[in-house]
Amino acid sequence: MDIASFVTSLVTSFVIFVVLVLVFTWLSSRPGNAPVYYPSVLLRGMDPWEGRGRGTRSPVGWLRQALSASEGDVVAAGGVDAAVYLVFLSSVLSILVFSGVVLLPVLLPVAGTDHALETAALNSDKAPQNFTQLERLALGNVRVKSLRLWAFLLAVYWVSFVTYFVLWKSYKHVSNLRAAARSTPDVKPEEFAVLVRDVPMPPPDQTIKDSVDSYFRALHPDTFYRSMVVTDHKKADKIYQEIEGHKQKIARAEVVYAESKTASKPEGTKPMHRIGFLGLIGKKVDTIEYCNDQIKELVPKLEAEQKTTLRDKQKQAAIVFFNRRSAAASASQTLHAQMFDRWIVEQAPEPRQIIWPNLCKKVYERQIRQVVVYGIVFLTVVFYMVPITAISALTTLEKLREKLPFLKVVVDQPEIKTVLQAYLPQLALIVFLALLPSLLMFLSKSEGIPSQSHTVRAAAGKYFYFIVFNVFLGVTITSTLFKSLTTIIDNPTGIVNMLANSLPGSATFFLTFVALKFFVGYGLELSRLVPLIIFHLKRKYLCKTEDDVRAAWAPGDLGYNTRVPNDMLIVTIVLCYSVIAPLIIPFGVAYFALGWIIAKNQVLRVYVPSYESYGRMWPHMHTRIIAALLIYQTTMVGVILLKQFLYSPILVPLIPISFIFAYITHMRFYPAFAKTPLEVVQHDVKETPNMDAIYTAYIPACLRPEKLEDVDIFEDAQSHTTSRAPSI
Amino acid sequence: MDIASFVTSLVTSFVIFVVLVLVFTWLSSRPGNAPVYYPSVLLRGMDPWEGRGRGTRSPVGWLRQALSASEGDVVAAGGVDAAVYLVFLSSVLSILVFSGVVLLPVLLPVAGTDHALETAALNSDKAPQNFTQLERLALGNVRVKSLRLWAFLLAVYWVSFVTYFVLWKSYKHVSNLRAAARSTPDVKPEEFAVLVRDVPMPPPDQTIKDSVDSYFRALHPDTFYRSMVVTDHKKADKIYQEIEGHKQKIARAEVVYAESKTASKPEGTKPMHRIGFLGLIGKKVDTIEYCNDQIKELVPKLEAEQKTTLRDKQKQAAIVFFNRRSAAASASQTLHAQMFDRWIVEQAPEPRQIIWPNLCKKVYERQIRQVVVYGIVFLTVVFYMVPITAISALTTLEKLREKLPFLKVVVDQPEIKTVLQAYLPQLALIVFLALLPSLLMFLSKSEGIPSQSHTVRAAAGKYFYFIVFNVFLGVTITSTLFKSLTTIIDNPTGIVNMLANSLPGSATFFLTFVALKFFVGYGLELSRLVPLIIFHLKRKYLCKTEDDVRAAWAPGDLGYNTRVPNDMLIVTIVLCYSVIAPLIIPFGVAYFALGWIIAKNQVLRVYVPSYESYGRMWPHMHTRIIAALLIYQTTMVGVILLKQFLYSPILVPLIPISFIFAYITHMRFYPAFAKTPLEVVQHDVKETPNMDAIYTAYIPACLRPEKLEDVDIFEDAQSHTTSRAPSI
Repeated sequence: MDIASFVTSLVTSFVIFVVLVLVFTWLSSRPGNAPVYYPSVLLRGMDPWEGRGRGTRSPVGWLRQALSASEGDVVAAGGVDAAVYLVFLSSVLSILVFSGVVLLPVLLPVAGTDHALETAALNSDKAPQNFTQLERLALGNVRVKSLRLWAFLLAVYWVSFVTYFVLWKSYKHVSNLRAAARSTPDVKPEEFAVLVRDVPMPPPDQTIKDSVDSYFRALHPDTFYRSMVVTDHKKADKIYQEIEGHKQKIARAEVVYAESKTASKPEGTKPMHRIGFLGLIGKKVDTIEYCNDQIKELVPKLEAEQKTTLRDKQKQAAIVFFNRRSAAASASQTLHAQMFDRWIVEQAPEPRQIIWPNLCKKVYERQIRQVVVYGIVFLTVVFYMVPITAISALTTLEKLREKLPFLKVVVDQPEIKTVLQAYLPQLALIVFLALLPSLLMFLSKSEGIPSQSHTVRAAAGKYFYFIVFNVFLGVTITSTLFKSLTTIIDNPTGIVNMLANSLPGSATFFLTFVALKFFVGYGLELSRLVPLIIFHLKRKYLCKTEDDVRAAWAPGDLGYNTRVPNDMLIVTIVLCYSVIAPLIIPFGVAYFALGWIIAKNQVLRVYVPSYESYGRMWPHMHTRIIAALLIYQTTMVGVILLKQFLYSPILVPLIPISFIFAYITHMRFYPAFAKTPLEVVQHDVKETPNMDAIYTAYIPACLRPEKLEDVDIFEDAQSHTTSRAPSI
Repeated sequence: MDIASFVTSLVTSFVIFVVLVLVFTWLSSRPGNAPVYYPSVLLRGMDPWEGRGRGTRSPVGWLRQALSASEGDVVAAGGVDAAVYLVFLSSVLSILVFSGVVLLPVLLPVAGTDHALETAALNSDKAPQNFTQLERLALGNVRVKSLRLWAFLLAVYWVSFVTYFVLWKSYKHVSNLRAAARSTPDVKPEEFAVLVRDVPMPPPDQTIKDSVDSYFRALHPDTFYRSMVVTDHKKADKIYQEIEGHKQKIARAEVVYAESKTASKPEGTKPMHRIGFLGLIGKKVDTIEYCNDQIKELVPKLEAEQKTTLRDKQKQAAIVFFNRRSAAASASQTLHAQMFDRWIVEQAPEPRQIIWPNLCKKVYERQIRQVVVYGIVFLTVVFYMVPITAISALTTLEKLREKLPFLKVVVDQPEIKTVLQAYLPQLALIVFLALLPSLLMFLSKSEGIPSQSHTVRAAAGKYFYFIVFNVFLGVTITSTLFKSLTTIIDNPTGIVNMLANSLPGSATFFLTFVALKFFVGYGLELSRLVPLIIFHLKRKYLCKTEDDVRAAWAPGDLGYNTRVPNDMLIVTIVLCYSVIAPLIIPFGVAYFALGWIIAKNQVLRVYVPSYESYGRMWPHMHTRIIAALLIYQTTMVGVILLKQFLYSPILVPLIPISFIFAYITHMRFYPAFAKTPLEVVQHDVKETPNMDAIYTAYIPACLRPEKLEDVDIFEDAQSHTTSRAPSI
């Protein structure tokens, strides 16, 4: 791609960005859009405008606000996970800044003042204008064997050690963040509970519930509170949903009915609907009456189903409650059974993020599922290459013209041509990447993971490897990769050389890619045009009741499973090019600076976390960054070797160093993320917690009794003998 | 080696064995030798002869006894570890028996009736007698591509599955054995204690002891009893030993003095000795007086040293005591500190097997030491090849004659020649192997492992890899191995072919090796000639007091660190040849049958365990056996491939199967060995245990106060503030 189209792409994306920001500042200042731009603020029951005078109206109001917000505010608004995500962005940012301040002033002149390209051009007597200013400022412009390579070699060391330093600091910070958040005195149900899986089949005369009770009461006589056996409540849930649906219908109908009572026609028209397929066929009925009848019918059915579920559909898993946090914590870490495949105990997930059907999967089944899933993922990662190569082959404009001659008319107009030339490949890539996450989420779920947050982490991990392998390696080595795959097997060094060969070439591609991603991507992110439009449409045509409206602007959460890997891709790209083409660093800085400030704004105002894992995402981010660093280091060894630079082996020690660093950090910090340190939960909550409330928090909606007092009845329904501990 | 020398070696070793057994039955029946043949019985305060009439005098008395003894008796006499060792022997035995009953009747005829060797011999027109009957009954005699190879191929499957089956059964059995032994109500100090390492440095105003107390009292308010900080008591110990030495001298002197009081000379002669170097120079002194004075001097010094040690030489490690077994168990498995490298908690080792200097090593130091040690071991394993190749080159008799011509006279006598030819290589090997264990023990100790038993396991592991790599591979591929090492690096399959090529050749070598080991080895083991002679000499010339005598016959323990790997070597050899030369199976059976019965006898009568690890050795044995199985399976793939048998790839699936088996067993059984399941300790001891006694058990001898009541004083000596929990 030539310099012209590169600049075009930059300029255009920047323009788009500015426009979007302006749109945002304008729209967000209009009260009608508050639900779109301040949902989380509203949900926390605050007035988005209060105490911010006209400052908010000013285009930089949101900016000032986001900057001024402390980490405490972030935690309060979006939970520890959001805070950790911001830490991730900021630490990558600081890695890049620290690298940039040294690399840019040093490497750019060193490269720019050399003449490898000219000489090459002259030798191959091409016109010198077919390499750009950019390429002149990159490693490619340094002569082979030139002593200038020392600068690049040392630069790699600098970047690596900056990374180590920042990562260590951040890990420590996050670890304290997590500890602080967990040792707060307020009651969190999951801290009083443990999840028990692989409960052995009890003797026929007692229910699973009974055996769980007796087992845990024997092992934890003083601290055991009570237990809840996981049941298969699909059927009950179905009925429950039906009832809810009818209730909703009634609510809507009543609103409609009320509106229909005009002055002219005071009695109004009762809303009707057909009971047949999609309300299109079948006999017409009065909605309100009909639904009420339905409910009357369903309620007893539900109650009956609840009873049978509790009694007869008990699964071999349970949630056990303790009356002290520390007790639960140490119970969740202690081996209970002599045989490993019985009574497996682990920390209980938050009630809201439990994946019920996964709880009762047996240990061996889980293992097998995991193996299968990994197999599938591996295949996906490898064979997604096929379409991607096709795309990147297709999207060179000339090819496109041949393939689709009718495009000529459009394409041959120069300005369109440049724009297309600038964007087509990147667009293709981005579109293509949008397809995957849901598949990966599904796969991770079917591994048998008990909690939502864990699934997200698993999916993010898979997505990262996919994205790095396919986008980064894929684009860099496009078609040659298949050959390389075979070469990898018999000599792993082959891949390095290949990378080294093809990296410098596609530098500009990634420059534009990054620019596009942050300008347009973040622009859209900030301005929330899509949600805005949807919201207004819904409210205009669909929403009848308040609940409908609320549903219409429900913001959802950040969706780490795609967000993090995408950022990680940028990290990988920027790191790998940081020394080859230092010009990419400013772009990376811009990406993460913007990303950080916008994410912070969104966390404070928009997104509502759907779960809280106290930053368990961090260890994954940490290892991924190190993975990126390793890719970077290996490539650099190759790149500088190709310059026939004798001293390039000096880079090799970096690779073991990275592994050691990874190992030490893991050993030092990870246990506090995987388990709950006693230190953290030692301060037991001040007032004795309301254990009944904690218990009820775990009862699935469709089984939940109306009144809190009924909890005991609920529990007794599970066991033959009423075996309950005296609640403290 | 030709058939003659093979038979000679068998016969001679058998004769030796019979002689030794007879010697044993004769000697062991003479009361004077009781301390040599029944030490453990005596130490348990029983009369070795009681209730066994003259049956013991009969040559098979000990045999009958050993057979009749139940596993319970073994546990009572030698602890769980001994019982587990016997399980190991018996399960290997049953693996070999099960394999033998199928392989021998099937494979021998299949091989014997083929004629590959003759044809080979005829083609190379050699006289057919330079291959032996043995070789005729081995795989080597089967023609290439012959369908008979199916039999051998299936045999491999049979052996493998027999192994899986037996191993699974045994692991289950051992795991229950361990559980049973641990859930006995009797008080074991280590079950009430946990070992705490990497205690952070306290603020200057408090001792480590104080910080440990406050930390654990905060985290375990109800169950914390008290703590003992590890101190550097080298100096105190030195003084203590001196005092003990003097006491001993006095005791001896008094005996001598008493004896000197003859009728002729009633006042006797006071024993004197010189205080100079080795009692050879310096002025003569009256031993008794002198030593008493010395003690008088030393005692106050010791007391002073004790105080300073307790107060000022506290190390950053401690042993913390709980007043309930389950509390200690779950504490030892719970993560305490937010930062991993502080307050590392693990199960406390038995008092008698603590390695004090290792306790206070910091976590990072331990890691580094481990890496270093592994490096050293790796080098040892690889480069011990040099001497071994030299030996096996030297020990072919002809070479010996050239090298040492003066031997001709001896060597040229035919009968000597055959014997030498039969033994020299094996002897060389055995002698050579006797050198290593102590080195490995030292290395394992310096890894920073806190307990004796763990050190033994670590050493055994190292020794196993050494022995398999050097003896087995070493002898099989003697000199070619160095070349092979390089081939391994670029294609790992090379080693397999090499093994396959050279295995059949050295079959007979190993036949004799096994025979020699079990006949002579076990003969010596049983007859205990060496200890007997030493004992009698000592008693005659050195021993003065009762203690001296007791010291003279102190039996020591089984020494698993060399025993187990040696057995494992035989397992590996026999497995690998089981199909190539099925004749080795009977030898293997004999080895383990004899081994089992003799070991049982020795456990019941002789050895006294110096520690109890409740069979933690088993998982190691288990994995080693699987390792042997893997070597076997890989080799067989190669061997049958070399027969140009198309179907040999059918064997490949066995290798992953073995890995899966190893993984599953590990996952299922291992946790109960690494940790203490709550199930096991839930039955708390009946009467409240004497916690003071438990506490004192951990006080090193040189610091131990005279009376139990002084424990509190001892403890207070460690802390500035008297901070003690009310003892229950």
